[in-house]
Amino acid sequence: MIVNMSSIATEEEIRHVIERIKECGYQAHVIHGSERTVIGAVGSNGRRAEIEALRAAPGVEEVIQITHPFKLVSRQLRQRGTIVDVGGVKIGGGDLVVIAGPCSVESGEQLMATARAVKAAGGNMLRGGAYKPRTSPYDFQGLGVEALHLLRDASAETGLPIVTEVMSEVDVEIVAEYADMLQVGARNMQNFSLLRKLATFERPILLKRGPSATVKEWLLAAEYLLAGGNANVVLCERGIKTFETATRNTLDLSAIALAKELSHLPVLADPSHGTGLRSLVPPMSKAAAAVGADGLIIEVHPCPERALSDGPQSLDLAGFAELMKGLGKEYPRAVKAA
Amino acid sequence: MIVNMSSIATEEEIRHVIERIKECGYQAHVIHGSERTVIGAVGSNGRRAEIEALRAAPGVEEVIQITHPFKLVSRQLRQRGTIVDVGGVKIGGGDLVVIAGPCSVESGEQLMATARAVKAAGGNMLRGGAYKPRTSPYDFQGLGVEALHLLRDASAETGLPIVTEVMSEVDVEIVAEYADMLQVGARNMQNFSLLRKLATFERPILLKRGPSATVKEWLLAAEYLLAGGNANVVLCERGIKTFETATRNTLDLSAIALAKELSHLPVLADPSHGTGLRSLVPPMSKAAAAVGADGLIIEVHPCPERALSDGPQSLDLAGFAELMKGLGKEYPRAVKAA
Amino acid sequence: MIVNMSSIATEEEIRHVIERIKECGYQAHVIHGSERTVIGAVGSNGRRAEIEALRAAPGVEEVIQITHPFKLVSRQLRQRGTIVDVGGVKIGGGDLVVIAGPCSVESGEQLMATARAVKAAGGNMLRGGAYKPRTSPYDFQGLGVEALHLLRDASAETGLPIVTEVMSEVDVEIVAEYADMLQVGARNMQNFSLLRKLATFERPILLKRGPSATVKEWLLAAEYLLAGGNANVVLCERGIKTFETATRNTLDLSAIALAKELSHLPVLADPSHGTGLRSLVPPMSKAAAAVGADGLIIEVHPCPERALSDGPQSLDLAGFAELMKGLGKEYPRAVKAA
Amino acid sequence: MIVNMSSIATEEEIRHVIERIKECGYQAHVIHGSERTVIGAVGSNGRRAEIEALRAAPGVEEVIQITHPFKLVSRQLRQRGTIVDVGGVKIGGGDLVVIAGPCSVESGEQLMATARAVKAAGGNMLRGGAYKPRTSPYDFQGLGVEALHLLRDASAETGLPIVTEVMSEVDVEIVAEYADMLQVGARNMQNFSLLRKLATFERPILLKRGPSATVKEWLLAAEYLLAGGNANVVLCERGIKTFETATRNTLDLSAIALAKELSHLPVLADPSHGTGLRSLVPPMSKAAAAVGADGLIIEVHPCPERALSDGPQSLDLAGFAELMKGLGKEYPRAVKAA
Repeated sequence: MIVNMSSIATEEEIRHVIERIKECGYQAHVIHGSERTVIGAVGSNGRRAEIEALRAAPGVEEVIQITHPFKLVSRQLRQRGTIVDVGGVKIGGGDLVVIAGPCSVESGEQLMATARAVKAAGGNMLRGGAYKPRTSPYDFQGLGVEALHLLRDASAETGLPIVTEVMSEVDVEIVAEYADMLQVGARNMQNFSLLRKLATFERPILLKRGPSATVKEWLLAAEYLLAGGNANVVLCERGIKTFETATRNTLDLSAIALAKELSHLPVLADPSHGTGLRSLVPPMSKAAAAVGADGLIIEVHPCPERALSDGPQSLDLAGFAELMKGLGKEYPRAVKAA
Repeated sequence: MIVNMSSIATEEEIRHVIERIKECGYQAHVIHGSERTVIGAVGSNGRRAEIEALRAAPGVEEVIQITHPFKLVSRQLRQRGTIVDVGGVKIGGGDLVVIAGPCSVESGEQLMATARAVKAAGGNMLRGGAYKPRTSPYDFQGLGVEALHLLRDASAETGLPIVTEVMSEVDVEIVAEYADMLQVGARNMQNFSLLRKLATFERPILLKRGPSATVKEWLLAAEYLLAGGNANVVLCERGIKTFETATRNTLDLSAIALAKELSHLPVLADPSHGTGLRSLVPPMSKAAAAVGADGLIIEVHPCPERALSDGPQSLDLAGFAELMKGLGKEYPRAVKAA
Repeated sequence: MIVNMSSIATEEEIRHVIERIKECGYQAHVIHGSERTVIGAVGSNGRRAEIEALRAAPGVEEVIQITHPFKLVSRQLRQRGTIVDVGGVKIGGGDLVVIAGPCSVESGEQLMATARAVKAAGGNMLRGGAYKPRTSPYDFQGLGVEALHLLRDASAETGLPIVTEVMSEVDVEIVAEYADMLQVGARNMQNFSLLRKLATFERPILLKRGPSATVKEWLLAAEYLLAGGNANVVLCERGIKTFETATRNTLDLSAIALAKELSHLPVLADPSHGTGLRSLVPPMSKAAAAVGADGLIIEVHPCPERALSDGPQSLDLAGFAELMKGLGKEYPRAVKAA
Repeated sequence: MIVNMSSIATEEEIRHVIERIKECGYQAHVIHGSERTVIGAVGSNGRRAEIEALRAAPGVEEVIQITHPFKLVSRQLRQRGTIVDVGGVKIGGGDLVVIAGPCSVESGEQLMATARAVKAAGGNMLRGGAYKPRTSPYDFQGLGVEALHLLRDASAETGLPIVTEVMSEVDVEIVAEYADMLQVGARNMQNFSLLRKLATFERPILLKRGPSATVKEWLLAAEYLLAGGNANVVLCERGIKTFETATRNTLDLSAIALAKELSHLPVLADPSHGTGLRSLVPPMSKAAAAVGADGLIIEVHPCPERALSDGPQSLDLAGFAELMKGLGKEYPRAVKAA
């Protein structure tokens, strides 16, 4: 850590900081510049939080952290990319994995029709919301346990492993019983209680990036899972909040390239939430594949204009089949239709 | 709701939308403009979600919602401002309520020294974190239940009611047993499972605005609490994420004025998290009082440079006393020192 | 336009709005809903600005615009994409056009070495800054006219047309004399005086998106050029400001797909400014090609670590050649090496 | 400057950076940490830009700047606050200066009626747009020179000095002939050609903060003016872009406190553009006064619902008089009514 003293810091203030750095278990390296003094705190066993608090000491202008705060997710720790196995589907192994399904599970027919179409078009996994995080308490909140049953049935028939969101630590056991992969939604990326609970399970986790989280914050959320014991983590970029109002979010494809540079974990793209507009899903899917994403998660509905949630961004069944054909044709990495 | 048809929508697409509007329980009012057709969906008992999904129907360009999505928190419902009573302290009653204390409870001495100073300077309530939401799993996570005991002791001696954050629905019971007011932190503003759980209690809630939430989303989070049965809700603006890097967040004082215009709930300001810089806490406290905030929540620590969290934004005990004097002198609404 | 009256608007306030709508040359269509009244202003020859001002009339809650504010740039006006010819290079014609060169022209050797390498690797045009917009007055501000001479020389030798930024309306004549294409930088996207001046020339314009502009604002800036008489406009997405601090900007590839959907103008991507990091330039270049960009503009420098500006995001000559090979191999649209 | 080497940097890469630092005219101080090496570049006469470019050298992870990039505007240079005299009105001298008037000058009657009301209510200066920066080329662009004449007339009658925006360096001479103070609009904050031109005049400048500029970038824009020779600069916070959609911008009052801490220049607040909503102008005006702003600039129109621009955020004449009374009563610093 580097402590940047103010240009008007006194000798005594500088001495005080040096002493505190030593108290905290670090060595202090002092650089007297032409305008100001800068002090490096060097060592690996010191109490970092206390150095950060020195920002509050008199004469200190800034405390600059120079090491990455994440460890277990870091590619420096592990050069080889992690492959996460979800019911036989390998995410991170080089193939473009495609997860598709409705935003919410609404009924048996809706889900089964979608699941069959996803399978037929070459999709690898099925998604579907059982518990829905909704901005308004008056919006459809999901079918809950009933949806979990329907997902299992659809999986049994099609052989597609399923992923569904878990919103509450209270629901982790039940959802883990039914689902092959548990999704942490964007709003819960920093729900640390939930992360700590999920870390104690082995089930693979799909960790969505928060809509205003930096890549570093996202990786630190993943670090909670790995530090707690669950190494089966897949990241998912789903769009960040920006000023653009024409799209629901802004899908940040550079975050995928950056996350893969910084971490060994696989990274998916969600062009449905990332754009909020059906017409942008195919071009952004292709772009995500080109940037190096390990897979896509796409919303599909038999009749988007009757969907109880996210209709405008859902492809219909024909639209999904066409997208898959497009991916298969242009990108050798894409999965072949069954 | 208004359905804005594309300028190249066909007659049949228009007819289809009109039919769907009727099927959903609304009347359809059609306006044929010079360039395009616009259709109003009128009525109060229709199925709103299905109209929104029409965005996905062919020929539709936009579905525009024209009513506020929140009800129970709305000032239209209740002209008179709500007063929330927290252990005898009335928030929303016209006086500027000042809540102060350390970011984290670190020890009995630290907390008691702070509590006494807060009381002596005229503060009305004591804050202190027992469970801390930290971006990194390697940062100090709070003393947990031990901190709740220490808070109770400090309250017993000083008579100050206490507020502390609850991060998990699993902890709601225990925290509610000890604290006079439960805080929902900014990262949990849209943790709907937690909100639903808190709604079943009577304990007053301090609901912080999410760092990238709009005022409307914030009010909808409060609506979860009121709709679930807990009307004792106090809002708190604590700064939003912006491009500014010199401050930790940007304290949005206009959101306080706007929230008070749209809702009957009391609104506090948190200039400590809102700025992240100690020197900005006093001017922003005065500005918050001037804009009409019902109170302030301020971080105070006996020795900020040794704080385990948020040192740079914490006032020391003398700084807090001086701020209170400043508020008392210039703002007649401020609480007098004991 | 739709005027959304407050739910507590009086009969008289509603009548007043209806009268004003008629005064402004529109017809008024009134929809009495269950909660509130909504009034449509219909017609094509009314005075739009005055309807917008009705937002300030008593009882009005909102005035909602339902038509796109841009006309000449709109794809509804012209289904076929525009092809802009820059010294023989056709932008928008289906091939992926690659423009490359140094951020700033620093010397004859630097520029000529780069130009030759760009040509050899298959680049189509040469870029290089003569006048540099710099955040600090103490940073290198460009060589000015001398740089224009050097650019002409490099173009003469390599046959590559050149594009360079013009920052001031005072410089438009001189820059237009030397350059084949004039760039409007991101900071000047809404420099309307400059846009109006450029509209009176025929030289093709490269219009960068402002770092916090919406796609609509960007298209309206282009509309200034077309409305003023210059139809040779190429758009360029160069990254928007977001919370992400690890990258310089966030390259918004969905804006490219969206701009091409809304407008007939060609759209380029600038992955160098868009990311600020050399390692992200190749993956984002491929993603931009996949999303449908008509070309790329890429910073290249013979020795990035000695560049007077933008070194960290510049490819060296070998890195650029490798990128071109990668594009050529995977994307049949990419230009072949000479 | 601090060069932060990657944890996997080689000895040779470290040596190379040290050599480059010396070549650039600095001394190199090396700190070998437990995980990585950090190198300080110390000295005051080195070539800073070249050190920054080292970010592009192999093995370098980051180059961290530790000094403020602005000099002449800095409070460290000049402890005492600057007072700018505009036709006898002193900005920065302790009184709250109130500038008011219409967004655009629309006619002689409109302007004169407003000017008289501003004067009567105790306003100190008159504002009014002659050249308007408008997002769309089809919106009202201002009366130009005619408006300048009308502003002079209004000033002659009321004695109020006038401020108006100059959008183009070509117009600087003519605007400077008529106006007492020249405004640089938010969109032009980084129009460096305009800033350089204005720096050669003596007329006071009102420099608005760009809607997505950091405080540091804003101060650097002011530095262009001071470095070029014009020290009569007043800063103006007018709201930044955020996610909030209910307000036009987010007025960042902490930026006022921060700018006054970092710089000796006076700072105004513009609550009209800052909020976009008339009802929020009075509370935010009071808050701006409380936070320490040196003055306010407020939009006033005789009939906001007929204003050709910015109607929704304009106070009418009675509303302005009431605001002034409110400021006068509660804030002793506010100007007394004439």
